[in-house]
This record gives sequence, C-alpha cells and structure tokens, in this order.
Amino acid sequence: MGKKNSEASDAASVEIELSTREVLLAAASELMTEMSTTEVSLHQIARRAGLTAPLVKYWFGSKDGLLLALAERDTEVSLRQLEELTEMDLDPATKLRIHINGIVRTYARYPYLNRLLDELLWDRESKSSNSIRMGFMRPLMEAQRQILQDGIAAGQFRNVDPQHMYFLIVGACQYMFATRVAVYEMTGESAVSPGYARDYSASVSDIVLRGISA
Amino acid sequence: MGKKNSEASDAASVEIELSTREVLLAAASELMTEMSTTEVSLHQIARRAGLTAPLVKYWFGSKDGLLLALAERDTEVSLRQLEELTEMDLDPATKLRIHINGIVRTYARYPYLNRLLDELLWDRESKSSNSIRMGFMRPLMEAQRQILQDGIAAGQFRNVDPQHMYFLIVGACQYMFATRVAVYEMTGESAVSPGYARDYSASVSDIVLRGISA
Repeated sequence: MGKKNSEASDAASVEIELSTREVLLAAASELMTEMSTTEVSLHQIARRAGLTAPLVKYWFGSKDGLLLALAERDTEVSLRQLEELTEMDLDPATKLRIHINGIVRTYARYPYLNRLLDELLWDRESKSSNSIRMGFMRPLMEAQRQILQDGIAAGQFRNVDPQHMYFLIVGACQYMFATRVAVYEMTGESAVSPGYARDYSASVSDIVLRGISA
Repeated sequence: MGKKNSEASDAASVEIELSTREVLLAAASELMTEMSTTEVSLHQIARRAGLTAPLVKYWFGSKDGLLLALAERDTEVSLRQLEELTEMDLDPATKLRIHINGIVRTYARYPYLNRLLDELLWDRESKSSNSIRMGFMRPLMEAQRQILQDGIAAGQFRNVDPQHMYFLIVGACQYMFATRVAVYEMTGESAVSPGYARDYSASVSDIVLRGISA
C-alpha cells in the first residue's frame, strides 16, 4: 500500500471511530432523556445503538468513560459559545442575558445533564471530577465573572459578588430540570416544554438584570 | 391496674416511642451530614444510635419509611413558620425576604435534604412521593404564591409569574447545597459555612426583591 492509500485508510478509520463513538453517545443521550435517569446500562446503550456491550467498553474504557465523554459532548458547544460571547462587542447586560438563555437551553436540550454532572463530580478526587472541573466548571465560572466585572466596571451593574451570582444564576437555570415532580405539580406536564423553557429563561434574565442593575 | 395507672403507662410508652424514633432520625441525619450522602444503611444508622437494625425496621417499616420520616422532620418547622409568615401583618417584600432566608437556612441545616427529597419524589406514583408532594411541596408553592399575589395586589411587585418565581427562588436557594465541587472550587471549603449561607441569602433576597419590585 502506498503512502496515499495508507493516509486514506487512516482517515477512513478516524471517521469510523468518530461515528461509532457518536452513535453510542447519541444512544446514551436518547435513553437518559426517555428514561429520565442516568441509570442506563452499557447493555441498554449498546442495544439502542445496534452494537454490543464489549464494543462500548472498547471505545470508552468503562461506563464512567462513556458518562464523561457524554458530559463533554453536551457541554462543549455551550462552553465554546460562552467563550466567544465574552469576546464579543456587546454590552455586559446583553451578554448576561444571552448567557442565561444558553444555560437554560443546554439543560432543556439535555435534561439529564444536571444529574450526569453531579455524578461525575461527586468523588472530588476522581479523574472524571477533575476533568469536568477544569474543562467545564472553571471556564464557566471565569467567563461569567468576566461579564459581571465588565458590567460593574461599565457602571451597568451594582457591585455584586460573582460567587453568589454563580450559585444564583446556575441554580435558577437548572432547578426546573432537576425537579420533575415540581414541574408536574405546576404545569401538569411530565417534562419542561421548549416554549416553557424559553419563557422561563426570559423571566430569569429580567429578574437578574433588574436585580443587579446599577 | 386502675384507669389512671393505665393512662400513665400509655403516656410513658408514647414517650419511649417518640424518643426512640427521634434518636434514630437524629442518627440518620448526623450520618448523612457527615458522609455528604443519603446512602447510609439501616445498620449504620442503628449502630450510630446504639440500637439494632431490626429495631429501625420495627419503627419505620423500611428504609423508605425512615427517609420519609426524616424529610418530614426536617421540613416540618420551616413549613409551619412559612404558614405563620403568610398570616403575619408584614408587607409582602419583608415576607419574601424572610421566606428566602428560611429556605437557605433549612438547606444549610440539613445539607442532604435536597438529595433526600429528590430520591423520595423520584417515583411519582410512590406513597413517599405523594406524601412529600401533598404535605410539603404543595403548601410551599401555595404560601409563596400568596406572598407574591399580595405583593402584586399591593403594587409592591411587578406582575411576575408565580410558577417561574418558584423555580427561580428554590433553585437559587438550594443549588449551593447540591454542588459540593463548585463550593470547593469557589470557596476552598468542602461545605457551606453558616456565615457564607447568611451572606448568600441576603444577596438572593436583594436581587430577587429588586428584580421584581414594581
């Protein structure tokens, strides 16, 4: 086989690798959404993907490896958008509104994400916990702090505590997706609809922005 | 034995019953706080209380029975105070501030409560879920809605959506106690201190009240 052929074959195998991983992650994501839990077995995930459990182990090493890869997949786009947002030429209030909307949209899209991150973070000493902390939590905290500091410096926001704002904003955005029974009690629906999430996100933005405006 | 003696003996046995139950609930509460989890066995609870596991079963029927009794114990005082608060002659903004403080204080006191309620509520058809929903969640929603409606009627609050306010307020108040890793990342401490919880509660009250003021 010449060099060119070998390169083509490498590219093809990378493509297969990506697509098998992606198919397995999509299967896990679908099952967790449908079953409203992260307690799905490798066997269930493999069956949904039309593959076998040993193949899941082959690609992800372990169930934890798969959970971590799924959390990374689900948070990657939001995190990139957030980092781009901090660089954009917009006033801090608009940035904060877009940021709040982004958090609600991420949880609405992956309603199991909250629980998934909880589980991965639980054992503070674990590799998964460290990976989520460094790769997701810290950049999120940092980007949010930057928006708030810019708003305070610009005289748009009061001098609020960025730590308190983190717990308030993320808490307000994620709770609805963590409390199925309260959602059912309030709305009569077993899940948050995209329209409800949109309206809720607008309410949170309004209250937070009025609440911190200078 | 005369009637009087029999009554005295009944009273004594009621007292023993109460105190054995209370000792077991206190042991469960202590263990869950120390271990930062609700995953404690009947055996561990019994040993902590200086009793035996069959005795736990005798008083609570099952582990679920004990978890439900603990959740009821932990929420009872807050719920009674909230119901008293709605009847008090205070302006709605002051009531809302006291209410927010009460939620943060309850979670600060019982850091496992969030997870405990989650677990009991998870299976929506279960007896425990129904009991928490009717005995705690519904009265909490109703009291909060009443305070908000009074504030709107008095012209103190904007016309906010009480459903959205429920998810925002409870979410903001509870998140800090559900996310140990973020707390550690932010504060360098492995648990929320009473002082930090107090400051945070004041921040949440400020932002929410400014955010909804008419």
